[in-house]
Amino acid sequence: MKLLRHGPHGSEKPGMLDKDGQVRDLSGHVKDITGAALSEAGLAILKDIDPTTLPAVTPERIGPCVGDVGKLICIGLNYSDHAAESGMEVPPEPIIFSKATSAICGPNDAVEIPRGSTRTDWEVELGVVIGTRAKYVTEAEALSHVAGYCVVNDISERDFQLEHAGQWVKGKSHDTFAPTGPWLVTKDEVPDPQALSMFLDLNGKRMQSGSTATMVYGVAHLVSYLSRFMTLEPGDIISTGTPPGVGMGQTPPVYLNDGDEMVLGVEGLGEQRLPVISA
Amino acid sequence: MKLLRHGPHGSEKPGMLDKDGQVRDLSGHVKDITGAALSEAGLAILKDIDPTTLPAVTPERIGPCVGDVGKLICIGLNYSDHAAESGMEVPPEPIIFSKATSAICGPNDAVEIPRGSTRTDWEVELGVVIGTRAKYVTEAEALSHVAGYCVVNDISERDFQLEHAGQWVKGKSHDTFAPTGPWLVTKDEVPDPQALSMFLDLNGKRMQSGSTATMVYGVAHLVSYLSRFMTLEPGDIISTGTPPGVGMGQTPPVYLNDGDEMVLGVEGLGEQRLPVISA
Repeated sequence: MKLLRHGPHGSEKPGMLDKDGQVRDLSGHVKDITGAALSEAGLAILKDIDPTTLPAVTPERIGPCVGDVGKLICIGLNYSDHAAESGMEVPPEPIIFSKATSAICGPNDAVEIPRGSTRTDWEVELGVVIGTRAKYVTEAEALSHVAGYCVVNDISERDFQLEHAGQWVKGKSHDTFAPTGPWLVTKDEVPDPQALSMFLDLNGKRMQSGSTATMVYGVAHLVSYLSRFMTLEPGDIISTGTPPGVGMGQTPPVYLNDGDEMVLGVEGLGEQRLPVISA
Repeated sequence: MKLLRHGPHGSEKPGMLDKDGQVRDLSGHVKDITGAALSEAGLAILKDIDPTTLPAVTPERIGPCVGDVGKLICIGLNYSDHAAESGMEVPPEPIIFSKATSAICGPNDAVEIPRGSTRTDWEVELGVVIGTRAKYVTEAEALSHVAGYCVVNDISERDFQLEHAGQWVKGKSHDTFAPTGPWLVTKDEVPDPQALSMFLDLNGKRMQSGSTATMVYGVAHLVSYLSRFMTLEPGDIISTGTPPGVGMGQTPPVYLNDGDEMVLGVEGLGEQRLPVISA
């Protein structure tokens, strides 16, 4: 299934994409696409629905594909080539950081450059959506706690992230810094999360191109590892790191400007098209 | 007002403390103590209620004083004496880090020592609860966005925080690492948040003792500063840093063990009494 949320910011309705790419409204079956709908039992109910029986809708906006996200956890330097372009070593174990959940927005919303920013940057990533609670789970059990996958753009203000004392969260959390979606693709449609190509274009020019095949720490390892340090709950999202080609890694560096457009995607998970504006 | 939440974990009901210290149930007036109840309009409705008209209850458990917390943002090294005991400089601007909101628990719940932990530590802190949305607010405006204050114990696993590659969130986010409450005390009852004494006892021995008077960056500055980097939303909590006396700062260091008990409080905001167990 490809699950989605449609409608104005803050009052999105649940939806589903049918096999012809038509959005169908799920409001009659589930209140929203949040953790409660993403358990195995919740997804089983949705799978039994024939999409052609649902009302077709032409949404004015696609929202983030998960609502009420409790945690947005990110993995740093998780592609060896990206670590190299950042001038940093591949970490001996996963680097965890977080983004404020208030940064989550839809896949085609305008991305804001914060006031005072000079170095706002992009990162196309594979997002992993948790379906069932995971605490101290093994790598073998880990994928059974995953509901599905989505595209996440882990936008960063590099100066806020790296030059303003301490911890990356400061440069990762501005409103609109986490475009998420368009779809939550359930894991039955993603047979191997470690074999997905991905790309990001800025103003029509290919900047990032890679594959989840070159992740340092794969999805199963990340879910198991994280579950040692915090409990993963239904609806939490893990953004698993970015391949080479971020703005900070260009010679000379390239950062976002008002009026730019990003188009990005992960194989099978859909695309984001994001205009850039000033906050 | 002293607002609280009572009942089993995950199904807490709203309550209020009357002037005699009796818990009164607010379920007839508000669904829960969450961001929606903490706007000026929401608080005004609650203020008009005569507590003696509410049902008295003897709660089997006090929960965290805010539900559905969107963000739990913490400030690092925000007391000059604590920075010194940590062997670190006072930062040139506030250090921001986050804790997973799944770490939030009640003020008398058992605190878990994570598996593999050798260095689980305590930090009594003043928590600031946001009442209205704050984005790019000035220091002069900042306190108008605050609903009230509470006690937060910012528990840390120092090895996970400092020795496992990157970012502090890894050592700050285990379940039960953020006991919050007992009460959300509305700001009208806290005339000066920069003049509150605070303490923490471990097994009856005073370990921390300090005052919010010695914060490096005060509450108004923190709210304004944070609002440059992320939007603060109703129900978000800022934990503002800890005075001297954490376990890591003792000679030799002292850490929590199964069977220990912490008692801690901030002047006017109530006390926490926390048994320590193994995860």
